[in-house]
Amino acid sequence: MLYLIGAGIGESDISIGSIEVCRKASKVYYESYTSLISESKLRFISDNIGKNIEELTRGMLEEESMRIVKEAKSSDIAIIFSGDPLIATTHKILFINATKEGVKVEVKHSSSIISAAIGESGLDFYRFGKVATISRWTDSYKPVSFYESIAANQSNNLHTLLLLDYMPESGSSMQLPEALRILIEAENHYGKGIISEGTKVFVMVNLGTDKQQKLYSSISELARSNIEKGPSCIILPAKLSDIEEEIISSMFY
Amino acid sequence: MLYLIGAGIGESDISIGSIEVCRKASKVYYESYTSLISESKLRFISDNIGKNIEELTRGMLEEESMRIVKEAKSSDIAIIFSGDPLIATTHKILFINATKEGVKVEVKHSSSIISAAIGESGLDFYRFGKVATISRWTDSYKPVSFYESIAANQSNNLHTLLLLDYMPESGSSMQLPEALRILIEAENHYGKGIISEGTKVFVMVNLGTDKQQKLYSSISELARSNIEKGPSCIILPAKLSDIEEEIISSMFY
Repeated sequence: MLYLIGAGIGESDISIGSIEVCRKASKVYYESYTSLISESKLRFISDNIGKNIEELTRGMLEEESMRIVKEAKSSDIAIIFSGDPLIATTHKILFINATKEGVKVEVKHSSSIISAAIGESGLDFYRFGKVATISRWTDSYKPVSFYESIAANQSNNLHTLLLLDYMPESGSSMQLPEALRILIEAENHYGKGIISEGTKVFVMVNLGTDKQQKLYSSISELARSNIEKGPSCIILPAKLSDIEEEIISSMFY
Repeated sequence: MLYLIGAGIGESDISIGSIEVCRKASKVYYESYTSLISESKLRFISDNIGKNIEELTRGMLEEESMRIVKEAKSSDIAIIFSGDPLIATTHKILFINATKEGVKVEVKHSSSIISAAIGESGLDFYRFGKVATISRWTDSYKPVSFYESIAANQSNNLHTLLLLDYMPESGSSMQLPEALRILIEAENHYGKGIISEGTKVFVMVNLGTDKQQKLYSSISELARSNIEKGPSCIILPAKLSDIEEEIISSMFY
């Protein structure tokens, strides 16, 4: 059996059920290619399951995924992912490879930035359009699908949850100042008039952890704010309803 | 301190961190108005935290929420919710009432139907439009916002996650046969030509539990299928991409 296990977003968000599975598994891996699991979190999980957790890097996931699937033919293997598994294509490919080899797969779900960020914003859950990811801009590569998603959502009066790209080479997600800068640069580049320095956005850093920080402010003010480092996301709201205004005034003070 | 605690979607999805909080709390409640937590799951949590869990019904949440907030002024109070907290307005109002009284609130996140259903479908996470809920139809009340959401998503070539209404009076969520019937009735009523008996949808029942059932089939075939009872959701896909077709053929067999 192959277990795909969510470690959630907080330090101790891994579920009781997942701990039980990992305790019994003959081998436990963690995946470090699509997202980061902090050292302290890995230690917490390792202490709780009473065994070491082996790293699976990109290369190992691609080249050795069949080896792991074969291990899972004769014993219980667990792979721990940050957040909730199966969102990234890499995880689905593991699922498919296992299925092709006749290995059963069980997913143990955990907290995800998606529902946590939507909930913590106080905004109406039913008013979120499609999610987008802000990718790093270079001189030669300026991906704008996130800008097009915001434009499409705004034209339907829907909020946009913006995730920040994870860069496995550096072992960290894009930090907020860079993401806010790219938002403004994209606007200057494509000029649809949907984002300005005065646009108020929600930013959330280290959600679900002791170092959580939530702000609702204009992009220019946020650029001057003292924002902690850590996994972050941005919500660019559509026009707020009266109820949303009221809720937000109590939740962001 | 007031702790809003997610019990997740699976029987043992509650996090280690949440169990620690509940063990130390002077009182632990669970909320039974916006969603159901099964008896076996409550027993599992109660056994793990070593104390009883008191029910909070709708009336209690509305009339006694200030009493609970006041309890939380002088001691640690935990309220357990199904899934991930703060999605429902009821939860946000608790948050606001506590804040107004100067009581600190901490949210312990857990697995949610939102990310779990999107992940388990195999569909591209970035191609989901806004989520909708199918509400019960009566002779005099036929809410169609879900149909309008599907139409809007389809016109943007986006998938729609459809949740099924929870009815606190009966203590259960709408079951799939009724939801599929309402989908067809809504189409007959409004006739935008977006749903037919032949439309293939994903249905997921008891996600994240031992009784999990996932199907991808036409509405007419699903109406004839032997589908288990339990909390369910439907995904009405937009046009599938080639990669999605490939992934789904391995994940739904």
